[in-house]
Amino acid sequence: MPTMNSTLQRTIRASRLSKDLISHHRLQSPRLFSTTRWRNIRTTEMSESQLAAVKIDRDRLWKDLHGTCEWGKGERWGDGATDIGMARLTLSDADKQARDWFVETTESLGCKVKIDAMGNIFAIRPGKQTSAAPTYAGSHLDTQPTGGRYDGILGVHAGIEALKTMKDNDIETEFPTGVINWTNEEGARFPISMVSSGVWAGAIPLEKSYNLFEVGGGKATQKSELKRIGYLGDLEASYKANPIGAHFELHIEQGPILENSGGKIGAVEGVQAFRWHIITVKGRDCHTGTTDFENRSDAMLTAAKLILHSHNKAQELGCLASTGILTLKPGSTNTVPGFVRFSLDIRSKDDAKLQALEDALKSDFAKIAEGEQIGGVNERGVKGRGCTVEWQLDTDSPATKFHEDCVKCVEESAKDMLGTNSGNQVQRMTSGAGHDSVYTSRHAPTSMIFVPCRDGVSHNPAEYCSPEDCGNGAQTLLGAILRYDRLRAERAS
Amino acid sequence: MPTMNSTLQRTIRASRLSKDLISHHRLQSPRLFSTTRWRNIRTTEMSESQLAAVKIDRDRLWKDLHGTCEWGKGERWGDGATDIGMARLTLSDADKQARDWFVETTESLGCKVKIDAMGNIFAIRPGKQTSAAPTYAGSHLDTQPTGGRYDGILGVHAGIEALKTMKDNDIETEFPTGVINWTNEEGARFPISMVSSGVWAGAIPLEKSYNLFEVGGGKATQKSELKRIGYLGDLEASYKANPIGAHFELHIEQGPILENSGGKIGAVEGVQAFRWHIITVKGRDCHTGTTDFENRSDAMLTAAKLILHSHNKAQELGCLASTGILTLKPGSTNTVPGFVRFSLDIRSKDDAKLQALEDALKSDFAKIAEGEQIGGVNERGVKGRGCTVEWQLDTDSPATKFHEDCVKCVEESAKDMLGTNSGNQVQRMTSGAGHDSVYTSRHAPTSMIFVPCRDGVSHNPAEYCSPEDCGNGAQTLLGAILRYDRLRAERAS
Repeated sequence: MPTMNSTLQRTIRASRLSKDLISHHRLQSPRLFSTTRWRNIRTTEMSESQLAAVKIDRDRLWKDLHGTCEWGKGERWGDGATDIGMARLTLSDADKQARDWFVETTESLGCKVKIDAMGNIFAIRPGKQTSAAPTYAGSHLDTQPTGGRYDGILGVHAGIEALKTMKDNDIETEFPTGVINWTNEEGARFPISMVSSGVWAGAIPLEKSYNLFEVGGGKATQKSELKRIGYLGDLEASYKANPIGAHFELHIEQGPILENSGGKIGAVEGVQAFRWHIITVKGRDCHTGTTDFENRSDAMLTAAKLILHSHNKAQELGCLASTGILTLKPGSTNTVPGFVRFSLDIRSKDDAKLQALEDALKSDFAKIAEGEQIGGVNERGVKGRGCTVEWQLDTDSPATKFHEDCVKCVEESAKDMLGTNSGNQVQRMTSGAGHDSVYTSRHAPTSMIFVPCRDGVSHNPAEYCSPEDCGNGAQTLLGAILRYDRLRAERAS
Repeated sequence: MPTMNSTLQRTIRASRLSKDLISHHRLQSPRLFSTTRWRNIRTTEMSESQLAAVKIDRDRLWKDLHGTCEWGKGERWGDGATDIGMARLTLSDADKQARDWFVETTESLGCKVKIDAMGNIFAIRPGKQTSAAPTYAGSHLDTQPTGGRYDGILGVHAGIEALKTMKDNDIETEFPTGVINWTNEEGARFPISMVSSGVWAGAIPLEKSYNLFEVGGGKATQKSELKRIGYLGDLEASYKANPIGAHFELHIEQGPILENSGGKIGAVEGVQAFRWHIITVKGRDCHTGTTDFENRSDAMLTAAKLILHSHNKAQELGCLASTGILTLKPGSTNTVPGFVRFSLDIRSKDDAKLQALEDALKSDFAKIAEGEQIGGVNERGVKGRGCTVEWQLDTDSPATKFHEDCVKCVEESAKDMLGTNSGNQVQRMTSGAGHDSVYTSRHAPTSMIFVPCRDGVSHNPAEYCSPEDCGNGAQTLLGAILRYDRLRAERAS
């Protein structure tokens, strides 16, 4: 219930609105200031220019973001005050500090806070239709062990900044709005990424998630750590028990495309498909000095050919292929390895293209290992005795398509912010990486907002997103949420 | 001093000589059996057919060899009684047992045993010229942690079998003969291979060798372990203080060449040159999903190209190139590695050829990493942003040429054993691997004898050399030692 004091505060805050917004608002919403009981501005009553005039506080966002980055600081990489990476592993003491701040801050903004069985935190600002599923801004506060200050953290802070701005401007949404902090998006400590939105979406069993042990041989499980830091909630982690009305996620691009093309905002249409395979090449150990090329079954040389061919073939089919892990045995300078195992990460916007790449590689790898002339990699050199190749599918993530309504709200909000000459500054994009939005999109209209990060660098202490880009992203997020609220109301009526 | 009993034994043993030898001996050495004081057969008095008739005891050799393999047994790989690998690391308790057996056995054969400051054991059977440097059979009793029963062990046992056969046949050599057990040939526990012959040759400083710590973080040094097992000798480990007259080393080939070509004995002319380099490829970590090929500096893809090119170029120039170790960072399926380090082992019979290969690779690697069209590896795929390549020389071992006198003695001995139709069965070869003979050859006429091992497999529990091949090798060794003794006498006179 508003007190006199809070009414006064609201009046003061209302005066912060731009003249443009106020004038429009007066014209179209004569009830404002004209009724004895003060009334919030409703999104359905806001004009385009009024919407455009609701501005987040960019300095506050920047300050708040770097404020919470005091918890779980990592490696310093530059001289600036914020030139310090992050090492805030999920469910650590530092993560608990950030979570506690999240709960306190959102409650102080009048939100109701719910915590589910995966420790996902849902902060909800009431809307007119109190029982409806909220429109959320969601991301994560956990980081990689050698991570930066923007991956995930920016999305959560921008959501809170949006709530603050709505409160500052006494904006009343038709539907509840809110912010989600998803648990363990990174999968860095307990090794499944996006695990808690995955449980919420019914894609990952709760027990499997609970029983994940921390990497590096520790004894803690995801459940024991949830309990330890006090974030094992009672609410079922489920899209049925706790539905989402819509999900917007602001995130740094983690790639170089916006930066290299002069883009400011990416309106993300979906996430590309990816599959992670483990490829095992088996040959035979032999002495590097005593075994001529003809008599070798060189698993390392074969693996080198397969990695090169995966790149060439992916390029040919418009896909991506990458090897990030490679181990071999026995591992001695003068022993030709008889065993090599490597990861093969293949990606495409299109499921069918991905399948075509995989089919081609499965056939080609076996032939290349046998010494056949495929793709030029066996053109020179000696055939040798051949190796065998085994494939093991580790992760299969089909292509995700976000909801056009949400994508449009992002696009329009960004264009409003950047002006009519925005041109190439707003780009429709496909995310190369997975995010919690992949799972929310299975049960709720979803889109993401990308902002450039310097050199496309992420998962690195030197990850950097400028104050301007952080602010652009948060402003676009707020605009998208408000637009979507209006759209939901229109659709409902 | 021979007693009645030992004279009797000699007579009995003499009866074991083949009829051929006895008849020749009677014709040419009428003193035998005709003088009251029994007299040894001198090598200088032996005809070719007499020499050929001196036969080792193949069964005794096989039994003795597998007898000492009870100490330090490794992994069982087959059902047979001897189908068990070896794990007799240098200066371990098991190595001490084998050493104690070596000393006892050679002393019981009338040898004088000397132990030097590196624990190298020299067992010397007197010759007529007592003060001359002995003609030795040398090899090693230590093994790899997952080694076999023949690498090194066969050479020592064959040397002892040669001494036994000389004793059995009352053969008197012009110069002393003997057997050497070299310490830590493998370099598996204290990580420099052939370290003790290297110290003897003045190529490796004693202190450096003493201060080697055991691999895997143990606190023992080579010196502390020499002391612990009682094999830190007083004799200076030096070719000056303790010269070698000649060195013959029987060894399994550790490669497939003899087996594949029907060869029985390799008369080893030398050891190929090798260099071990550590190659570091530096690119930049990036996300596998968010970074297009154009914007990558993919150190793993680059390393794959370099490894393939090293193979192709080595083949082109008639050399060998191998990668046995590869590590990368950061090591995550969805991160393109910005750092790869791999070993590059290059070899050639010819120092100049090796240099030509190295020069070519140094130039080509840099260009390939930059994306230039070299050797076909950049023909397909995307150029990307390039990587840098650094070289670090780790080991440089120039080509070794053994002594023609010794090689000829091996060749003649093998041909005598195998008969006039030996044809391709006796082959001149170059050793692909290093051996203690590399260091002895710097200060003494040296050659090696190779025998086939199954599938060329070595440094593996399943390493196998048949009783026939073991016997052939030991027989050739004995023949080479006797022939060389005669040759030395001829040269001296």
